[in-house]
Amino acid sequence: MSLLTIGTMAFDDVETPFGKAEKIVGGACTYISYAASYFTNDINLSAVIGGDFPKSELETLKQKGVNLEGLEIKEDEKSFYWSGKYHMNMNSRDTLITDLNVLADFNPVLPESYKSSQYVMLGNLTPSIQASVLDQLDGTQKLIAMDTMNFWMDVAMEDLKKVIARVDLLIINDEEARQLSGEYAIVKAARVIKDMGVKYLIIKKGEHGALLFYDDHIFFAPAIPLADVFDPTGAGDTFAGGVLGYLAKTKDHSYANFKRSIIYGSAMASFCVEKFGVERLKELDQETIQARVREFYELVKFEI
Amino acid sequence: MSLLTIGTMAFDDVETPFGKAEKIVGGACTYISYAASYFTNDINLSAVIGGDFPKSELETLKQKGVNLEGLEIKEDEKSFYWSGKYHMNMNSRDTLITDLNVLADFNPVLPESYKSSQYVMLGNLTPSIQASVLDQLDGTQKLIAMDTMNFWMDVAMEDLKKVIARVDLLIINDEEARQLSGEYAIVKAARVIKDMGVKYLIIKKGEHGALLFYDDHIFFAPAIPLADVFDPTGAGDTFAGGVLGYLAKTKDHSYANFKRSIIYGSAMASFCVEKFGVERLKELDQETIQARVREFYELVKFEI
Repeated sequence: MSLLTIGTMAFDDVETPFGKAEKIVGGACTYISYAASYFTNDINLSAVIGGDFPKSELETLKQKGVNLEGLEIKEDEKSFYWSGKYHMNMNSRDTLITDLNVLADFNPVLPESYKSSQYVMLGNLTPSIQASVLDQLDGTQKLIAMDTMNFWMDVAMEDLKKVIARVDLLIINDEEARQLSGEYAIVKAARVIKDMGVKYLIIKKGEHGALLFYDDHIFFAPAIPLADVFDPTGAGDTFAGGVLGYLAKTKDHSYANFKRSIIYGSAMASFCVEKFGVERLKELDQETIQARVREFYELVKFEI
Repeated sequence: MSLLTIGTMAFDDVETPFGKAEKIVGGACTYISYAASYFTNDINLSAVIGGDFPKSELETLKQKGVNLEGLEIKEDEKSFYWSGKYHMNMNSRDTLITDLNVLADFNPVLPESYKSSQYVMLGNLTPSIQASVLDQLDGTQKLIAMDTMNFWMDVAMEDLKKVIARVDLLIINDEEARQLSGEYAIVKAARVIKDMGVKYLIIKKGEHGALLFYDDHIFFAPAIPLADVFDPTGAGDTFAGGVLGYLAKTKDHSYANFKRSIIYGSAMASFCVEKFGVERLKELDQETIQARVREFYELVKFEI
């Protein structure tokens, strides 16, 4: 089923304890779209890039079933650029440089064909932009999900809360959940956030897995303990892309299926970190993904 | 089956973001013994205390099936004292005061009846003391487990490695595993540590669960997301007491049963943190424990 993916497409400079890569293709929308493409080939991408963004990357996305009609290309400008350095624990990082470039006045106008996308993944963007995307939708959506970040809680909390109240699923990390709710304990934070009007909540904990809050249920999805985490950049977006892609494919919002979607999202994220940027996400196949999902199953399976 | 528990019995002053408690009963051996007492009533305790240690606490332990023949009481001296303060994340703490007192010249002499204990849990102590306990055993043990801490890696690494090579199961936390192995990634750390001659390895990650390394298998046991973590002191020892108690009860070292033992250990630890000190560990019953184990089962259960 159709999935609208919206967010940044960027160049990243990434430094980890294990290496350094410059001007690699990144951005939330890129990671989300690649991850989701393994589950649905009806993806409507909305983003803005400069003339410097590699055309070959766009071709690869097209080949994976990503519709680029909603991609705005500003030929004379530069793409969004982010530079960051990871700490030894790989769970925290410092942002060194953020050059908005084309993103500074990003004002997504959805093509007609996008407005009835049945699933929506709003990547991390200014809450007012996320709201303007919601305004353009035709109201027939089956599930709308969003990401955000601490920065918007600092500078646009009220706008952010209004967007949250309009979506079905919020996907954030533990630190963001704490700041958003004002509660330290994740269970309490989840209660406060669900009271903001969001139906389902996923709280990501990086290498420590992710929690799904669904009605009165809590589901914990582990992360695979990896010997080599090469580059965590985009892992959260890849996770979201996997979750939304799987839900769009299965069209089943039951608790059991939501749990599966998170395992698939976690599996995609576990591939993402194995190489710099989106490289690993380009070369996967269904068999490899299934085998990884099976690893998650075996990792936590026990009988009582 | 008989379980030898050895380690500190202490007074603790504990400060957490949620409160403060002074001169409460603590110590590794206390937590281990209380936790294990829900699984076996054949516990042989070896520790040293001063005349200040409450007799009522000893009575309670006896009632729970703990044999105190190996408890040395130095009436004219003071018990081991520890004071610590937890940070907001509850996963890290500062030790404020450590007064060894009676522990300074602890030299455990096992009663004859202890030497054939079939299961052994060596709490965190000077490696040379742990070694002297092993020397006194009759060699018929089914499983010997040990804990340790970073401090011994700083000051007695070679002694520590010799003890590790003599036990079946090492239970340590992630930071300790990193320091012991010199590897940051937990999977790599586990490989290095298993090469030190230990058969089974459990790496605890506090509120993020625990990993079991068993032959070529990795099992991940989650932690229950709790709304209120009151006092994490002793959670790791309680976990170990639950694991060893369950193994001593079931006498089954298969992978499936080892996994269960870790779930039981995790369940006991989840109770421990609900109140200050050992209070919560005194008031449990089998039904309450089973219900908590069931929560762990539901928390991670999914079908693919």
